[in-house]
Amino acid sequence: MTFRYNNVYINEVSTVTGPYEAKGPLSKYFDKSYDDLYFGMNTWEQAESKLIEESVDILLTKIKRTKFDIDLLISGDLLNQIVASNYASSSLGMPYFGIYSACATSVEGLIIGANMIEAKQIKNCICSTSSHNNAAEKQFRYPTEYGGPKPKTATFTSTGGASAYLDSKKAGVRIESATVGITTDIGFKDVYHMGAAMAPAAASTIYRHLRDTKREPGYYDLIITGDLGVIGKEILKEYIKTEYGVKLKNYDDAACMIYDLKKQPVYSGASGPACAPLVTYSYILKKMKNGELDRVLLVATGALMSQTTVNTKLSIPSIAHAISLEAIE
Amino acid sequence: MTFRYNNVYINEVSTVTGPYEAKGPLSKYFDKSYDDLYFGMNTWEQAESKLIEESVDILLTKIKRTKFDIDLLISGDLLNQIVASNYASSSLGMPYFGIYSACATSVEGLIIGANMIEAKQIKNCICSTSSHNNAAEKQFRYPTEYGGPKPKTATFTSTGGASAYLDSKKAGVRIESATVGITTDIGFKDVYHMGAAMAPAAASTIYRHLRDTKREPGYYDLIITGDLGVIGKEILKEYIKTEYGVKLKNYDDAACMIYDLKKQPVYSGASGPACAPLVTYSYILKKMKNGELDRVLLVATGALMSQTTVNTKLSIPSIAHAISLEAIE
Repeated sequence: MTFRYNNVYINEVSTVTGPYEAKGPLSKYFDKSYDDLYFGMNTWEQAESKLIEESVDILLTKIKRTKFDIDLLISGDLLNQIVASNYASSSLGMPYFGIYSACATSVEGLIIGANMIEAKQIKNCICSTSSHNNAAEKQFRYPTEYGGPKPKTATFTSTGGASAYLDSKKAGVRIESATVGITTDIGFKDVYHMGAAMAPAAASTIYRHLRDTKREPGYYDLIITGDLGVIGKEILKEYIKTEYGVKLKNYDDAACMIYDLKKQPVYSGASGPACAPLVTYSYILKKMKNGELDRVLLVATGALMSQTTVNTKLSIPSIAHAISLEAIE
Repeated sequence: MTFRYNNVYINEVSTVTGPYEAKGPLSKYFDKSYDDLYFGMNTWEQAESKLIEESVDILLTKIKRTKFDIDLLISGDLLNQIVASNYASSSLGMPYFGIYSACATSVEGLIIGANMIEAKQIKNCICSTSSHNNAAEKQFRYPTEYGGPKPKTATFTSTGGASAYLDSKKAGVRIESATVGITTDIGFKDVYHMGAAMAPAAASTIYRHLRDTKREPGYYDLIITGDLGVIGKEILKEYIKTEYGVKLKNYDDAACMIYDLKKQPVYSGASGPACAPLVTYSYILKKMKNGELDRVLLVATGALMSQTTVNTKLSIPSIAHAISLEAIE
């Protein structure tokens, strides 16, 4: 399912991060970064919720609007029952849709919002997402105090909240088209190698996007997936060539961009729903606005398992949603 | 945020339930019911996923379509990371959006789907949801073997999968309008009294729906909430009168309809995302099709906490989404 848009723009964005992201190469592009992981809250879950709330507050300040001007908030995150988004929505007080596509959540939100704006069903919306390293480690893996070693294929959940303000006013970057993901499951079960589990989903969505829009990979100045990681990125390139005959060009992965992979102990790179939008809303959008990039395909990838399905030995289904962004002349 | 629709219909629906629902008063209206809670699967989570998959299969058979004819699947459930929906989506192979509004998930899905059909962005979609008593008990409460007593205000998570096929073809019932919920939190913390936590969200959404559409409660032949339960239902009536000056008429609650409250040990009634659609798609739609009901406002209510937020003593935010259904002349 590929949608085309004529009148939808990401007018403005906001990003709030934790300390690891602030030590990475994109540091200067974020609106705000914290030195610790609690942000003055009592629990990591509340801290994650604050990331969303604060990113929306910063966004509202940037666009000089109040919550009463916003038609819809669309948000989701990795926490059980997406509570980071739910509790933020409670403070923010806007009509709210909760969504979940794991680390592909940001783009699912952009697609739902873009469709409603294109159809003039809403005037505007805010699409948010978050992830929090310690909240995710606690929920999906071992207690962090355990200090268990991880393989090189593992990724490091990014800490951040990212929000985008969508409107039909020509400003920021244009949302040109989007392709909804189809859940893919190749029977892969290693939760320390999410990139391998998600690469087939990314391949499927990129292939269907190019097919539906009749485009070659080179049409885009950048195809950016998030978050496959160093190894998953190579798997995608190989897999999409073998499976679909597509040779990726101008391709990169957000998981490989937000941290300094040589200096920071992040294994194969970043992960978490915040990863793709943190990189895109800060660094990539800046490049689009200053003329370095014209056409960007953002392909957010998500692994759709839970701790329970992993413990009961099920394989990891994955999904990827894609959105095509264009610089405004 | 209230949407109006001119060309969206719930053409067909399907319902699959567990044994408790099959012993209730609406038994004969369900498409299929199981005698046990495993449905031939190994775990309760897989069993819940099967409820969605099977309800979609039944729906496809009823409408004489295959998965390749469906533009979009929108689904969500109570399980961590909505895995019942995710794993079903993997088997079903349709473009997929995962959503989460706890027990209000069914109506969130109908609204997203209805907006896209109204705007002709998709031709059709399937909106699904599920809940499973044992999967929910295991995740949110104590092991069922523990047999802990519960207060009368508690509800009993319904077991079922429900799916609706939406299209612009005039058949079934019409979706006339919808109101998106705003998350409400009155500081209430008792997870054994969800009806009290959710009643203010239902009141807010019903009030805003009536205000936006300039209607009186009597406009509807039935306003049906789900799932407030016996006590929550009375709280809503009182709360909406006191807080918004609205006197509910022709009002009932799905939680009070699916079980025999005198004979079945379900405390204050049913709950779970399946509750509202199981009642609406079976019994209510039948009444609309045979002329007993013309206008129905379905108000699905959801409590947006997680086990973690309850354990860390946070209050319970809630949301309600409303959709107006009309019989076709």
